[in-house]
Amino acid sequence: MGIINDDFLLTGKTAKHMYHDFAKDLPIIDYHCHIWPERIAKDYQFRDAYELFLGRDHYKWRQMRTFGIDEAYITGDKDPFEKWMGFAKVFPFLIGNPLYHWTSLEFKRYFDIDVPFTEKTAKEIWDICNAKLKQDDFRAKSLITRSNVELICTTDDPADDLRFHKQLKEDGFSTKVFPTFRPDVAVNIDKEGFEEYLKDNGIASYDALISWLKDRIAYFHENGGRISDHAMDYVPFALGNAKAVFEKKLAGGTLTTEEIDVYKTAVISECAFEYAKRGWAMQLHIGAMRNNNTRMFKKLGLDSGFDSVNDLCIAEKLSAFLNYLEQANALPKTILYTLNPKDNYVLGTILGCFQAGPTRGKIQFGSAWWFNDSIDGMTQHLVALGNLGTLGTFIGMLTDSRSFVSYPRHEYFRRILCNLIGTWVDRGEYPNDDEALEKIIKGICCDNAREYFGF
Amino acid sequence: MGIINDDFLLTGKTAKHMYHDFAKDLPIIDYHCHIWPERIAKDYQFRDAYELFLGRDHYKWRQMRTFGIDEAYITGDKDPFEKWMGFAKVFPFLIGNPLYHWTSLEFKRYFDIDVPFTEKTAKEIWDICNAKLKQDDFRAKSLITRSNVELICTTDDPADDLRFHKQLKEDGFSTKVFPTFRPDVAVNIDKEGFEEYLKDNGIASYDALISWLKDRIAYFHENGGRISDHAMDYVPFALGNAKAVFEKKLAGGTLTTEEIDVYKTAVISECAFEYAKRGWAMQLHIGAMRNNNTRMFKKLGLDSGFDSVNDLCIAEKLSAFLNYLEQANALPKTILYTLNPKDNYVLGTILGCFQAGPTRGKIQFGSAWWFNDSIDGMTQHLVALGNLGTLGTFIGMLTDSRSFVSYPRHEYFRRILCNLIGTWVDRGEYPNDDEALEKIIKGICCDNAREYFGF
Amino acid sequence: MGIINDDFLLTGKTAKHMYHDFAKDLPIIDYHCHIWPERIAKDYQFRDAYELFLGRDHYKWRQMRTFGIDEAYITGDKDPFEKWMGFAKVFPFLIGNPLYHWTSLEFKRYFDIDVPFTEKTAKEIWDICNAKLKQDDFRAKSLITRSNVELICTTDDPADDLRFHKQLKEDGFSTKVFPTFRPDVAVNIDKEGFEEYLKDNGIASYDALISWLKDRIAYFHENGGRISDHAMDYVPFALGNAKAVFEKKLAGGTLTTEEIDVYKTAVISECAFEYAKRGWAMQLHIGAMRNNNTRMFKKLGLDSGFDSVNDLCIAEKLSAFLNYLEQANALPKTILYTLNPKDNYVLGTILGCFQAGPTRGKIQFGSAWWFNDSIDGMTQHLVALGNLGTLGTFIGMLTDSRSFVSYPRHEYFRRILCNLIGTWVDRGEYPNDDEALEKIIKGICCDNAREYFGF
Repeated sequence: MGIINDDFLLTGKTAKHMYHDFAKDLPIIDYHCHIWPERIAKDYQFRDAYELFLGRDHYKWRQMRTFGIDEAYITGDKDPFEKWMGFAKVFPFLIGNPLYHWTSLEFKRYFDIDVPFTEKTAKEIWDICNAKLKQDDFRAKSLITRSNVELICTTDDPADDLRFHKQLKEDGFSTKVFPTFRPDVAVNIDKEGFEEYLKDNGIASYDALISWLKDRIAYFHENGGRISDHAMDYVPFALGNAKAVFEKKLAGGTLTTEEIDVYKTAVISECAFEYAKRGWAMQLHIGAMRNNNTRMFKKLGLDSGFDSVNDLCIAEKLSAFLNYLEQANALPKTILYTLNPKDNYVLGTILGCFQAGPTRGKIQFGSAWWFNDSIDGMTQHLVALGNLGTLGTFIGMLTDSRSFVSYPRHEYFRRILCNLIGTWVDRGEYPNDDEALEKIIKGICCDNAREYFGF
Repeated sequence: MGIINDDFLLTGKTAKHMYHDFAKDLPIIDYHCHIWPERIAKDYQFRDAYELFLGRDHYKWRQMRTFGIDEAYITGDKDPFEKWMGFAKVFPFLIGNPLYHWTSLEFKRYFDIDVPFTEKTAKEIWDICNAKLKQDDFRAKSLITRSNVELICTTDDPADDLRFHKQLKEDGFSTKVFPTFRPDVAVNIDKEGFEEYLKDNGIASYDALISWLKDRIAYFHENGGRISDHAMDYVPFALGNAKAVFEKKLAGGTLTTEEIDVYKTAVISECAFEYAKRGWAMQLHIGAMRNNNTRMFKKLGLDSGFDSVNDLCIAEKLSAFLNYLEQANALPKTILYTLNPKDNYVLGTILGCFQAGPTRGKIQFGSAWWFNDSIDGMTQHLVALGNLGTLGTFIGMLTDSRSFVSYPRHEYFRRILCNLIGTWVDRGEYPNDDEALEKIIKGICCDNAREYFGF
Repeated sequence: MGIINDDFLLTGKTAKHMYHDFAKDLPIIDYHCHIWPERIAKDYQFRDAYELFLGRDHYKWRQMRTFGIDEAYITGDKDPFEKWMGFAKVFPFLIGNPLYHWTSLEFKRYFDIDVPFTEKTAKEIWDICNAKLKQDDFRAKSLITRSNVELICTTDDPADDLRFHKQLKEDGFSTKVFPTFRPDVAVNIDKEGFEEYLKDNGIASYDALISWLKDRIAYFHENGGRISDHAMDYVPFALGNAKAVFEKKLAGGTLTTEEIDVYKTAVISECAFEYAKRGWAMQLHIGAMRNNNTRMFKKLGLDSGFDSVNDLCIAEKLSAFLNYLEQANALPKTILYTLNPKDNYVLGTILGCFQAGPTRGKIQFGSAWWFNDSIDGMTQHLVALGNLGTLGTFIGMLTDSRSFVSYPRHEYFRRILCNLIGTWVDRGEYPNDDEALEKIIKGICCDNAREYFGF
């Protein structure tokens, strides 16, 4: 028997009641993920269990490397089943890791597999999965609709023509699939690829860039986009002449840190003004340190499992940036994520300084992100948000995932949420008031996000 | 039925025994708060429940803003009952927030109200509170004495004439009310109001300033003052010619960060020398970032709910500052508070480097402050202090509050303390030795503070 | 009755089973400590309980100072029994401190004492201990072998002739005692004693230094050394001309921070290249701030209880340093320790960026260090490692101690580990699979370290 049963992660009476009666059957609003719209539009069929579960899953790759497995069995040229067996080797040692739970949930929910994944069971599970993956109801669209997903927001470059989003709309796919505007390449004047990007999009001046970004925001808006996303590996904030910085860069000059930050602040702010005007929400993902292993980056590129948490000071610049927008009457709805849990109290209190009606929870402390997407990380996030803010206004979970079988992470979140709140009720820290609890649970799992984004 | 019952927050046998038999009836030593002595001296009568509960309570204002309530219903011109109803709207959504517990305790302890505060019950509660507030035993002095408060230390500017403290002494008010010396305005050479402050107090030179501060310390001492307080939003430490910095400032010069820190270090040190000589305790409140929202600061001023936690590095300068005083044989008793719980292990270990007899617990890790004043924040503080120091020497809780009904925060603290220690005992991590436990609990709740301050 | 019984710290069925049936009787691999090899080689006999328990134990000294005890009774000239009584005074107030548990375990395991240590029992315990310390089986070697210690790694200067390690080998002492290479003095070009050290070892040039270090590594290797250790109070990383820095220093120049870091990076890297070549493990101890109290440092020297946690940013430089070695194909097995628990998520994710077969767990998140060596600190470390890495590959506990009776800290760790994992199993978060659990527990307690170091 595997670990996934009805009361997985639910320890008390109230938790069980709330999960089963309030949370379990609610639709999923997956307002931030990295799924490829092309795969949905083409109703992709997965070749095998390797592609579905391990294909681009750098969470799993990291742990396989940790276990001493040769790269050939991870991203190399070994055959899919050999790689599958490599993952089976490390799996039982992942005790305490959310991968253990996620994977067990995925096997159970999509494939009805209820035995622990080990070297002994790996072949049997491989065969079961592969047989089912040949069926039509295991193609991309079915995996989504079977997961009760009401809405998906993908993550897209401003230059994207959004043809697959359009096609999905035309095809009448029952799950709404909207784009998210992520202009990182245009912001990152300090990274490789910046000038090529400008050239590709026919942008020759700073004013042209800003104007192009605004046009693209309008285009995303027409196609259902209501959210943007910015990766802030650090928080840049400096005011100055961004146009001059841009021109210096194009003239081949070397930019100072100050100049880089002036440029970034200006471009993000110009976007933010537009988000505010259109009622969009702006996501800021703060504190990642990426591609730490140069040799492997050269070999495998981005998102291959060589990223980590950074630990820079962020409070002063983040507050100054939000304040700058607020003073300009142009602070959009904002969702702040941090990769470093040491910042939970910073984010949880800074956001309180910029709340303003009429939006409920205008500035959000985004759900526990990436390395924090675990029982402990999510619990710490919810506890911090509860202590510092109004938990009942939280817009809840998202997958942030590339995988078509990651929707059980919403189930994981909901169980953790119900267990935490149920424990508070059972300990007498909140009244056992079913009506209030139902509103809170349904709000966090679904209703708050619906109201907040207003799709 | 509300959540406040005899065993609120007490989960085990030992916790219940210790709270009810050791902690519950001890007097309150509220050695740090922001209550206005004038209101006590004049035995202030509150106009209504709004003024008592929401009047200047920026903790509650923040959450009302978070809920999307219009500022008119928070600090604006709507009538008190409308504002009251605004707070009732957000209240049930404050699950997991200490405000839920504080407010419930306040209703129960002062007004015998035992129903949850909701939109439905808000009118009834409003009426009950307002009726009682007309009675004499709901005036300022009664609220204090009914709370079993032995001593209050207010927070006062050095220029204060302390007339209300004197009057309270003359009137023979049974609770001792002493001033706390807080010279922030004189220290903050980098903030607005510095030069005006000097002028107002007839100070024309650096030497005159130091001499004036020492005189005021003497004056506070005569009037019962034994504690000082410094807000260290960051930790300044730099040695140099403070007199020259002062003169440059008065001559209209622009100070460098280094110069500002030289000045601050010198002035705080001069004060500290005096504290040490007189046996005072020095409080350092580290790590707040204030008035983050410029537009609202201009509108509402200080302490209106727009502050947050900062995240600067503090260890090296804090240690250097304490070491500097220690080498001069002039390190007073010191209480270190941090607003950022990431610093718990920094403070909890730095203080161990400067402990010295004969004072028990000379350098204290101050009680969980402001945003940390919650079950989780206080528990984390106590656990950190327990792991790193000698918990049994801790001087315990304070309200840090402007409110006349905030004394149940001591009850809240005592329940959390008893529950934590009781849990340790029940788990077999400490002997079930009633005599030792009584000494520890009574010490932390009351006796240690009495001995430490020596009022 | 004292607190130490069979099920101390074990709360569930699975935890008890795992501790008693898997963990309890495993030998101890104490791969990092500060014990003096001379004392083992000479089979040292302790004068009295003071010397054994309090002799150089700065953990205990700190808490005595905190309790207000005069330094004369701590490191001064009072007689041993008076000091013993001083420690007895503070002991009951150390509720929540690991010292309470460590000391209770030491009394129980080595002296069969089962009453709480208090002022009342202190004399009786003193007499019992002193009587037993006269027996031969309470000399250094017996204390070690009775503790079931398979292997000890001491910490040694490169210049050490390792005569006592050799003697222990010749004597056929049943516990293996190997040296650890700790070249801090040669690295710390910014600290006093650097030039004297060079002179003492006849080193006149940078090349001579590097060549000498490599010779000493070879010498340590011959004598069983397979581990190095570097104290990184901060993380230096800068590339440049280290030879020039060295020459500037010897010519009496004042080095910039950048120059110091260039030198340190180069010397540590040269060592690391050698470690990698020889299959050694490199330990990095990050984040201590030492000798904070200058007056007491002058009086008592190093390691006297005046150290603390630092809070610098470490992520970027640490990652850059590991990446630099990795790109040179010369990253040895590495164990990263942090003194500041705010860095748990930084270390726990950076190490994932540099894992590579065939070593299982090549980059390790070292056991909770020093101030973190408590129930909470160890639990947080294990939970972080579990969430972020592959807990099943962890090489487990070490004493890091100068004491001959600190081996019960392994028992402490094992109980905490079994309790944590047992709780997960009992809560249904991991299958109740005895075979898998046995492999994991035995791995972390013993087998992983054996395999990892390959002594």
